[in-house]
Amino acid sequence: MQVINGTMNLKLQEGSHGIVVKNLYLSCDPYMRSRMTRVEGPNVFTSYSPGSPLTGFGVAKVLDSGHPNFKKGDLIWGTTSWEEYSLITVLEGLFKIEHTDVPLSYYTGILGMPGLTAYAGFYEVCSPKKGEYVFISAASGAVGQLVGQFAKLMGCYVVGSAGSKEKVDLLRNKFGFDEAFNYKEETDLVGALKRSVSSSLFLSVTWYFPEGIDIYFENVGGEMLDAVLLNMKDHGRISVCGQVSQYNILDQPEGVQNLMCLIYKRIHMKGFVVFDYYNIYPKFLDVMLPYIREGKIMYVEDIAEGLESGPAALVGLYSGRNVGKQVVLFARE
Amino acid sequence: MQVINGTMNLKLQEGSHGIVVKNLYLSCDPYMRSRMTRVEGPNVFTSYSPGSPLTGFGVAKVLDSGHPNFKKGDLIWGTTSWEEYSLITVLEGLFKIEHTDVPLSYYTGILGMPGLTAYAGFYEVCSPKKGEYVFISAASGAVGQLVGQFAKLMGCYVVGSAGSKEKVDLLRNKFGFDEAFNYKEETDLVGALKRSVSSSLFLSVTWYFPEGIDIYFENVGGEMLDAVLLNMKDHGRISVCGQVSQYNILDQPEGVQNLMCLIYKRIHMKGFVVFDYYNIYPKFLDVMLPYIREGKIMYVEDIAEGLESGPAALVGLYSGRNVGKQVVLFARE
Repeated sequence: MQVINGTMNLKLQEGSHGIVVKNLYLSCDPYMRSRMTRVEGPNVFTSYSPGSPLTGFGVAKVLDSGHPNFKKGDLIWGTTSWEEYSLITVLEGLFKIEHTDVPLSYYTGILGMPGLTAYAGFYEVCSPKKGEYVFISAASGAVGQLVGQFAKLMGCYVVGSAGSKEKVDLLRNKFGFDEAFNYKEETDLVGALKRSVSSSLFLSVTWYFPEGIDIYFENVGGEMLDAVLLNMKDHGRISVCGQVSQYNILDQPEGVQNLMCLIYKRIHMKGFVVFDYYNIYPKFLDVMLPYIREGKIMYVEDIAEGLESGPAALVGLYSGRNVGKQVVLFARE
Repeated sequence: MQVINGTMNLKLQEGSHGIVVKNLYLSCDPYMRSRMTRVEGPNVFTSYSPGSPLTGFGVAKVLDSGHPNFKKGDLIWGTTSWEEYSLITVLEGLFKIEHTDVPLSYYTGILGMPGLTAYAGFYEVCSPKKGEYVFISAASGAVGQLVGQFAKLMGCYVVGSAGSKEKVDLLRNKFGFDEAFNYKEETDLVGALKRSVSSSLFLSVTWYFPEGIDIYFENVGGEMLDAVLLNMKDHGRISVCGQVSQYNILDQPEGVQNLMCLIYKRIHMKGFVVFDYYNIYPKFLDVMLPYIREGKIMYVEDIAEGLESGPAALVGLYSGRNVGKQVVLFARE
């Protein structure tokens, strides 16, 4: 791909084994903030370079290919860049999109990295069992909304926290969580998690975890994690997926004070990254596509239109402005 | 057991199913501090009652028994009280001492609760493999000294931290750790763990973890845990046994800031309590007795003499005054 006399030549240079793509959807994912800090030593992420386009997950269409696995017209998802057209030379971790009866943008979310994250993080890391008590923070986000629905499908009691009334309504009414609360309205998170109203005479039930949490799917960190630790059951499991409340803190991260609970309660806490589970992507697709087609799993996206709306959409993640999975539409096919 | 006319009657009351014991050795264990704080809700520990003797692990001799499993003259270890004679009515968790060719005090340590803690915490929780890099904090204590030796027997590279030159020398010279350092002399714990001197020409090697830690046996918490998190390898394991640096803080515990490492490094962090492993005590004894008799495992105790020296010995744990396992000798047989 070359720019000659101000005109972009969307053909590959002779002998290249890469592909040239037109970017269609770009994904805003919380982990991207970490790449804006200088990462020292080996890490799962590399830092962004100032002056170069961001890279991230996206859906794109192949315009030219020097690699036998891809041909012109193919749709792919994987790592691309925040620009109209990209030359991709690292092809590992690119997936060809075979099923287009679902919206293409889904491959940035429910059928892409966040979907696989939710699937692996819940089924592989949490070892869930029917009837267990599951709590999910940032529960209306790309990952949280799916984890909650997986847990419901398994027969768990599921509560989520989110940052607005609109999101809490989504959790209760669209995603079928048993309960949900707005953490911004709680002055005492420890008490909020214990909550157990239960008047009688024409209803008012509400109970979250008066007997404790078996599984916590951790997306936020900080104060919420501290409150959860005090509310875990013995032998509980914490799957550490993200800590979005901490990414945009320029100073020190908030300290977590209740780690002694790990001992008394024999808690298992395990961090994970989705890349370690790429090998189960085909199995994951086999499960998810029918769920989507049969309406067994709901999915909410927040789509910003146009490259120029990208930066604000991305930054919005850290104040929770998005409702559902944040995507940026770069171009329609 | 009754006191009549100022004389203690060391006979059981008619019909009692308990035992009367003479206490010989009492164990000073860090967890005891937690029982001096009001414990809310269900917990593995109950709080001490002001005005009543402390309870804790000890070695005792049976003077009278109303239970078929114990008879006069038996030696036992398990939960007893900090007093000369005790009436024990809860007999679960009492073990009869069958092997007396080793010092009796060992049943408060290497052959008792701390020994089983080290054994279960290392072999069952850490999933260690030959050649792995193991770090142990509070490494000269009752548990740490054993974990380090287990790790060496398995063929791991083992480094311990302790709080004095004397303890560091013990780790290096008596317990056979590969290296050890005095954390009180380090201003930068993150850097200390990375350390890697290595001049040549007539020696000076020293390397701790320039390539990171596979297994951290956590005994102290706080700042040390934070430094370790930054030095863990991918897929490392943290066995959370204790956090002695935090027990005597009257205010809030120190916050741990580097939990994001759990994600990037896919770390497994698991708290445990020894009670869950009581079922493997016989197997543990079968392993440990030969190790002790053959001198394959060394063991250092710090024995204070007399009930009256007990409180200072116990309090000394939290400033690290003890060198090796702290025991109080109440009475010789």
